[in-house]
Amino acid sequence: MKTTIGIIGVGMLGASLAASLPEGRYRRLGWARRHEVGVWALKNGVLDSFCSTADELLKEADIAVICLPVPTIIEYIQKYAVLMKEERVIVTDIGSVKGCIEKAALAEGIRFVGSHPMAGTEKSGPEAMVPGIYGNATVFIVPPYREDAEAVEKVEAMWESVGGRIFRIDSAAHDLLVAHTSHVPHIVSSALALSVLDEPDPIVKEQRFAGCASGFRDTIRVAASSPRMWRDIISHNKTAVIEAINSYEERCTLMKRMIQNDDFDGFEREFGLGKTLIEEWRREKKW
Amino acid sequence: MKTTIGIIGVGMLGASLAASLPEGRYRRLGWARRHEVGVWALKNGVLDSFCSTADELLKEADIAVICLPVPTIIEYIQKYAVLMKEERVIVTDIGSVKGCIEKAALAEGIRFVGSHPMAGTEKSGPEAMVPGIYGNATVFIVPPYREDAEAVEKVEAMWESVGGRIFRIDSAAHDLLVAHTSHVPHIVSSALALSVLDEPDPIVKEQRFAGCASGFRDTIRVAASSPRMWRDIISHNKTAVIEAINSYEERCTLMKRMIQNDDFDGFEREFGLGKTLIEEWRREKKW
Repeated sequence: MKTTIGIIGVGMLGASLAASLPEGRYRRLGWARRHEVGVWALKNGVLDSFCSTADELLKEADIAVICLPVPTIIEYIQKYAVLMKEERVIVTDIGSVKGCIEKAALAEGIRFVGSHPMAGTEKSGPEAMVPGIYGNATVFIVPPYREDAEAVEKVEAMWESVGGRIFRIDSAAHDLLVAHTSHVPHIVSSALALSVLDEPDPIVKEQRFAGCASGFRDTIRVAASSPRMWRDIISHNKTAVIEAINSYEERCTLMKRMIQNDDFDGFEREFGLGKTLIEEWRREKKW
Repeated sequence: MKTTIGIIGVGMLGASLAASLPEGRYRRLGWARRHEVGVWALKNGVLDSFCSTADELLKEADIAVICLPVPTIIEYIQKYAVLMKEERVIVTDIGSVKGCIEKAALAEGIRFVGSHPMAGTEKSGPEAMVPGIYGNATVFIVPPYREDAEAVEKVEAMWESVGGRIFRIDSAAHDLLVAHTSHVPHIVSSALALSVLDEPDPIVKEQRFAGCASGFRDTIRVAASSPRMWRDIISHNKTAVIEAINSYEERCTLMKRMIQNDDFDGFEREFGLGKTLIEEWRREKKW
């Protein structure tokens, strides 16, 4: 018998998940506020069925996957908790911050396991979907301290079916980790783009635009992501983000001091250590 | 009659230039310290002829293009200045810093025009060449204050023949510009890679490696470039680099303060301005 997956929020990541689920094993329901999204999803074979309400989806789904911005995930857990409990539906999500979502789920007493697939692009909306985006991606699975073994197993099986590499972690460790590996890179990248491109003098601005090449383009790519989404992520992970920015700033200040003090041996050593670690990481990822 | 281009230093950028020059217009000579490079270049059709000495190349070339690290460019200008003057060869280079090279060339009184094609990858060596890499790339042309119009014209024609978009600029403006658009991005990227991957605790290190995805990969790509090359570039452009780091740090500190002060409206506005400028820049580059 097929497991029914109910995708709440059919944006870039929700649509990509629906499009990647193996048909033989899963039935794919979806619900989104905008009806056009449903029309698009059915026309493109992304969903088997589009529900007209979230209630309808929760009554049919074995697993509900909330693919929405962090504050909306929390809002929906609170709004639909009664029905989620009645239906004993397993609820998971794809939010980039896990502590605040887990807290809401535990307070409501629903069957919950957090997920966070490390995949995405700087684009959003269902049309930007990338079937196969979860292939070889790390998927953090964050079981709450009151573990529901069946729920964890089913959620992991779903992510494995789309090619995810499961990595179990608790919510506090997760949130500090992604502050380092994802949230701070977005901030740094945005600050860099602004310091180069936000130039009032039109002649200098023209030079700056001409002087930015492929290295710059890649370094600042993630800063073209959704400002609203990143506001939501960072405001829900403030303490960890500040801790991670501070540790980044220490490394950056060290390099600046070395340059100021003509310690170019030291600079070359630091830069070389970075290169070595990047190569080690790429080998492990097979990238 | 074909113009003879003499490429001194057949590494990634020198070999890419040789491979991109239109055969009908240019004869391609090369010289490199390692003889194997010549064997490789002739075998792969990258050069028409490999000279056994730099003297031999300078006697035959109309334009000599020094494709070597910044300090070696300066060294070679000083070492071969007498012959360069005797032969009235037009000398150019591909160094990422222009002030120090121009100064050396002017002191020697050779026919010199600085070039800086904004192209490259994090890889080095002739085997890493990318024919066509200069297509649509900005090429800064830096004529010294005692301008040699014929030399400027010939050097520009050469870069145009491989698809470069010419942008004339003086050396001081160039060096401050690339400090912003290229040198600081390399430092920031390296500091970020180190703050995430240089982790002594093996369990945390494993988590960090798992938690880095495609966004991180792109943000830190340039930090896998040659440490020796970046030491040379940054040590020859120290003042401009410090000025550009300071202006980057201001933007980064502003964002951090906004997060600390719960000014997430401000954060979203800053991030949004960065996104808008990136999109404007991409439209202009047609990227």
